[in-house]
Amino acid sequence: MKKSKLKIIKIGGNIIENEGQLDTFLKNFAAIEGLKILVHGGGKSATILADKLGIESKIIEGRRVTNQSTLDVVVMVYAGLINKNIVTKLQTHKCNAIGFTGADANLILAGKRPAKYIDYGFVGDIVNVNRQTIKQFLELGIKPVFCGITHDNLGQLLNTNADTIASEIAIAMSDFYEVELNYLFELKGVLQDIKDENSVITEINTKIYEELIDKHIISEGMLPKLQNCFKALEKGVEKVKIGNASLIEATDSLHTTLSL
Amino acid sequence: MKKSKLKIIKIGGNIIENEGQLDTFLKNFAAIEGLKILVHGGGKSATILADKLGIESKIIEGRRVTNQSTLDVVVMVYAGLINKNIVTKLQTHKCNAIGFTGADANLILAGKRPAKYIDYGFVGDIVNVNRQTIKQFLELGIKPVFCGITHDNLGQLLNTNADTIASEIAIAMSDFYEVELNYLFELKGVLQDIKDENSVITEINTKIYEELIDKHIISEGMLPKLQNCFKALEKGVEKVKIGNASLIEATDSLHTTLSL
Repeated sequence: MKKSKLKIIKIGGNIIENEGQLDTFLKNFAAIEGLKILVHGGGKSATILADKLGIESKIIEGRRVTNQSTLDVVVMVYAGLINKNIVTKLQTHKCNAIGFTGADANLILAGKRPAKYIDYGFVGDIVNVNRQTIKQFLELGIKPVFCGITHDNLGQLLNTNADTIASEIAIAMSDFYEVELNYLFELKGVLQDIKDENSVITEINTKIYEELIDKHIISEGMLPKLQNCFKALEKGVEKVKIGNASLIEATDSLHTTLSL
Repeated sequence: MKKSKLKIIKIGGNIIENEGQLDTFLKNFAAIEGLKILVHGGGKSATILADKLGIESKIIEGRRVTNQSTLDVVVMVYAGLINKNIVTKLQTHKCNAIGFTGADANLILAGKRPAKYIDYGFVGDIVNVNRQTIKQFLELGIKPVFCGITHDNLGQLLNTNADTIASEIAIAMSDFYEVELNYLFELKGVLQDIKDENSVITEINTKIYEELIDKHIISEGMLPKLQNCFKALEKGVEKVKIGNASLIEATDSLHTTLSL
């Protein structure tokens, strides 16, 4: 039997912080037909709140070192402020959103990252995605909106990279659906030249990927994103794209398509 | 056909702010058999965060005046920090909790309170509880955990008294269930003498209620709580009790029972 389609969109970068761009994006997200899941970041807002509270933001290789105060900040900003504002906005467009952390219905189980070279604190690596429950919600017509918070099912919330949440959900849901995963942000895709916004590399396969790494064309921030993309493709996700938030509407505009 | 039972518990006051007491309460909540809903406050934590951010907390007749900065604070604290920590803790006790605001699945629709004598800002009065969806979740085995945030379905989150949320949900769910509503907090019930913690008035009906108001025995903070209680009873809620958080376990301990 042919699988139904499921679209999973991770929205990040500066889009969330820009009210006008976010509104446009959410209106377009609401208009997508069929099953869909939204995953959002919010690191910039978390840093702003941390600053106001006099909490130092320490980010190593794109990952936030998360002590108790920082965890409280990211839970407040991601699961509270950003998530619930997205949910209420989607509802105005008749998109029946519910905001989730991994703790809700035990949807995403994670393990606290062991402190090896770096102790990241309350940062979680995903152990399991509760795919049956997510499927149940999707089939009830619910549009899940996930933020970057998971838990260990031992009473501890954990800060978890939203790009990784998107790819792990995409992989898990591939058991049931033909999944397309989109990473949307302020750039038009993976750039050949970071100073030229139109220098988008339209196709990246694993061979090109390795060449780009060798040539240092892929920046530090893009590296974990691309790792998530290739892992998703290897583990059964049908299609993975990286592009600007406007790609949601103008699906033929310039973007990067990943393939194995 | 006899209706199934549904227990709705509002937990507030100092219980939420005390980790040990909250843990005990949540363990006991998880152990309750059958259908249940938790509603929580968190005003004290919101005031602490507002203070740290230099935002003045202005509370009139037990209601927080809510400008944009204050709304952000209560959304972060209620829907983020407190709600998600409760959810992860309930999950450790195999209680399949999901945290909700009124925006999620459009569960609680509210209208911004008109500015008459006092402009409360982004404060919402409940217009509708989406009882069918809540019923659907309960029947899936989900234990909803509501915080004091609703929305107007026009993209605006609203700060809404958690006591009122509890009574309005209780009224709405009475269409389907035999509902018991409990308001649990640090006191043992409605007190005859605020200085004597054991001076609990064990039974209050509408006649006694009016006498207590005339004699100024009911304090300002207790008044809106009792109004919620009587409204609930008038509109079909089966049983309403006010008592200490330990009442959840020791159901025969001293408390106040309300009746018409």
